Amino acid sequence: MNRRHFLQHTAALSALPLIPRARRSPEASVPLRVNGDRLNGWLSAFDAIGRTPGGINRTAYSEADLAGRAFTLDLFRQSGLTPRIDAAGNIYARVDGRDASLPPILIGSHVDSVTNGGNFDGPVGTFGAIEVARTLRERNVRLRHSVDVVCFQNEEGGTIGSKLAIGALTDAELNGVARSGKTIREGIGLTGGDVSKLAQAVKRRGDIACYMELHIEQGGLLDKAGLQIGVVEGIVGLRWIEVTITGMSNHAGATPMDQRQDAMLAAAKFTVVVNDAIRAEPGRQVATVGRASVTPNTTNVIAGEVVLTVDLRDLDETKLVRFQAAFEQLGRQIGTASGTRFTFRNLVDSLPALADPRVMGWIDGSAKALALSSQRMPSGAGHDAQEVARIAPMGMIFIPSVGGISHSPREFSRAVDIANGANVLLNAVVAADMQ
Amino acid sequence: MNRRHFLQHTAALSALPLIPRARRSPEASVPLRVNGDRLNGWLSAFDAIGRTPGGINRTAYSEADLAGRAFTLDLFRQSGLTPRIDAAGNIYARVDGRDASLPPILIGSHVDSVTNGGNFDGPVGTFGAIEVARTLRERNVRLRHSVDVVCFQNEEGGTIGSKLAIGALTDAELNGVARSGKTIREGIGLTGGDVSKLAQAVKRRGDIACYMELHIEQGGLLDKAGLQIGVVEGIVGLRWIEVTITGMSNHAGATPMDQRQDAMLAAAKFTVVVNDAIRAEPGRQVATVGRASVTPNTTNVIAGEVVLTVDLRDLDETKLVRFQAAFEQLGRQIGTASGTRFTFRNLVDSLPALADPRVMGWIDGSAKALALSSQRMPSGAGHDAQEVARIAPMGMIFIPSVGGISHSPREFSRAVDIANGANVLLNAVVAADMQ
Repeated sequence: MNRRHFLQHTAALSALPLIPRARRSPEASVPLRVNGDRLNGWLSAFDAIGRTPGGINRTAYSEADLAGRAFTLDLFRQSGLTPRIDAAGNIYARVDGRDASLPPILIGSHVDSVTNGGNFDGPVGTFGAIEVARTLRERNVRLRHSVDVVCFQNEEGGTIGSKLAIGALTDAELNGVARSGKTIREGIGLTGGDVSKLAQAVKRRGDIACYMELHIEQGGLLDKAGLQIGVVEGIVGLRWIEVTITGMSNHAGATPMDQRQDAMLAAAKFTVVVNDAIRAEPGRQVATVGRASVTPNTTNVIAGEVVLTVDLRDLDETKLVRFQAAFEQLGRQIGTASGTRFTFRNLVDSLPALADPRVMGWIDGSAKALALSSQRMPSGAGHDAQEVARIAPMGMIFIPSVGGISHSPREFSRAVDIANGANVLLNAVVAADMQ
Repeated sequence: MNRRHFLQHTAALSALPLIPRARRSPEASVPLRVNGDRLNGWLSAFDAIGRTPGGINRTAYSEADLAGRAFTLDLFRQSGLTPRIDAAGNIYARVDGRDASLPPILIGSHVDSVTNGGNFDGPVGTFGAIEVARTLRERNVRLRHSVDVVCFQNEEGGTIGSKLAIGALTDAELNGVARSGKTIREGIGLTGGDVSKLAQAVKRRGDIACYMELHIEQGGLLDKAGLQIGVVEGIVGLRWIEVTITGMSNHAGATPMDQRQDAMLAAAKFTVVVNDAIRAEPGRQVATVGRASVTPNTTNVIAGEVVLTVDLRDLDETKLVRFQAAFEQLGRQIGTASGTRFTFRNLVDSLPALADPRVMGWIDGSAKALALSSQRMPSGAGHDAQEVARIAPMGMIFIPSVGGISHSPREFSRAVDIANGANVLLNAVVAADMQ
């Protein structure tokens, strides 16, 4: 397609609804398609970075994470894009639009991982967005809006990069310690950012036309239903509640069973009742005790203290409030009965973030144009999209996770689904450009 | 008391039952008494070694443990005793007896601690034995039997020093890693032993007339009953069972509650049912889950694996067998219901060790002569005495632990009780010498 044809094509795209357009512009290959093999090749190569016997370990600011970012910077460059690292350590690259007065359409995700995670959570969306930008360039599709591709830093540590991008991280939070042992402040330096200039990295309402993020589902709904695309309605609100249970450490052999203040036993009972409570009510709410640290953690000593975390999520904020109160009440009851003391501290509170109806519509339309089956669904997982949603219309595209497995070395998404997701993103970008 | 008086005195002791003796030998101070202030002064000074904000940390082979051993060697020397470190790293010193053909009476304990422990578990018995030996020397009480004072190394890591003293540690066990991070093999070198000459450190049946150990109770029975002395009937058998629970790590937000294989939840249920089972039956058996390590131990990831330990104890070996079988059955049931897998491995199996009736009689008599209240009782805690019991008649003297607290920074025994215990040990040694 030469430049003249391209302009005719985009003019046609601007004027018409998406589905009939393909028929009305026979010279344009609408819906557009990315190079799925290339995208999946990048993901395969990326699998070597941070791979350990326990899974992928590209926890934010670790050497493997920095190696992953270097790999990603190379992908941008190979794709003819010029990446820049902003003061927050987020990576951006732009495909210029025709109308410099319009804010850019932002697409992307992250490349850091959890401890012992998989290769798909993050990279699919980041590389998918790079592939979309590359396809636009290769096909000489020059949109009205610029398209910015972003790779946010440290998503898994609490959407840190995207919080910095909207100016939502407090100074105190900069001193938080990431899984790699580095503080966020140190991490910003390591990723090439500059803590003294964070204000320059902040986007405000109006700075972004819309944000779209491709991601693996991380749950089993699409896989179970045999559907190809999830159109995300919103991202659940989340609370990370740290629970400190204080008993009394004592000799495991010499202390009769009825004279104990066993923090481990109290923690176990709490873990069971949290699970019972969350399951007792219909709905999609989830609660997980995923972390526990025991003091002194010795075989022959009754535990004196256990610190555990509850991860609580739902799309409905009032439910979060209600369940947290219930958990605290249950903990206090166990404490009273067992001579232990329960204290609660919220480490993270994030509100539910709803997707923009128009963005959902573009994604719906894109999937339909590609003849892909889809459903609307909430995201149980947190994403950078929830932060960007505070300042711009947001939407997310999910592809199936085989067996619903994620945050695990067994996390897997099929190459065909990854290509489908990138194709949906590409055509949703084109649709967004027409607004 | 000059030498002539002393000989008359000991002749009188040999011929007469203990209690009337004091009246019949008015020139001799029977029952004998240690210098309790001196003994408690040593303990106070010792409290500075390995003291941390979390408690006493003289875990075997750590710098603090080695400093504690150096302090103990000084005490021997100050007391006119000549300590020697044998190939196993155990410290011995002798008060010579009159009859070199008789095996020595052995008394002592240990000075190493658990992680975040107290200052009384071990040092009371070791320093008490040194004080007994010093008193015998100062009072010129020359017994028929030599009296050997021992400080066993690494009691808290599984009665390692006393196992070495009876030749019960396997070569493989020498490679076990202590809490300090050192292997036992390394630790023997650090304590001044010699791994290549361990056979020289082994005592056999007949080498020791009897072994007596003074120790804090570590439970709350004496304190609750208001009694001064416990006469130990035996040391419970112990099993340390390592339980590995394998589930599947997965995303804490995106995985519906009914699609989880949550190793943390299964571990919590197991911890609760172990406690329920052990308490459902009358008796003094105890079971404790004191250690748990979670993988990946991340707030937003469902745990894929939990490794925990059960510490199971009773004086009756058949009960241990039965409870272990019950725990394994309960674990498998939870595994089946939750999609997790339970595997069990015994880390330590120790048989119950019964005290010798004659030794108990000397201790009973000694307490009565001192007008101290006492009761017979089992030891729920393991001690070096359980190892020595395999080759020699054994007895233990317990003194109250305030509040029954031990293996804790709040572990405490009163100075008067410590002096009482050392006095009982002293007069029990004298009684043993008369056999």
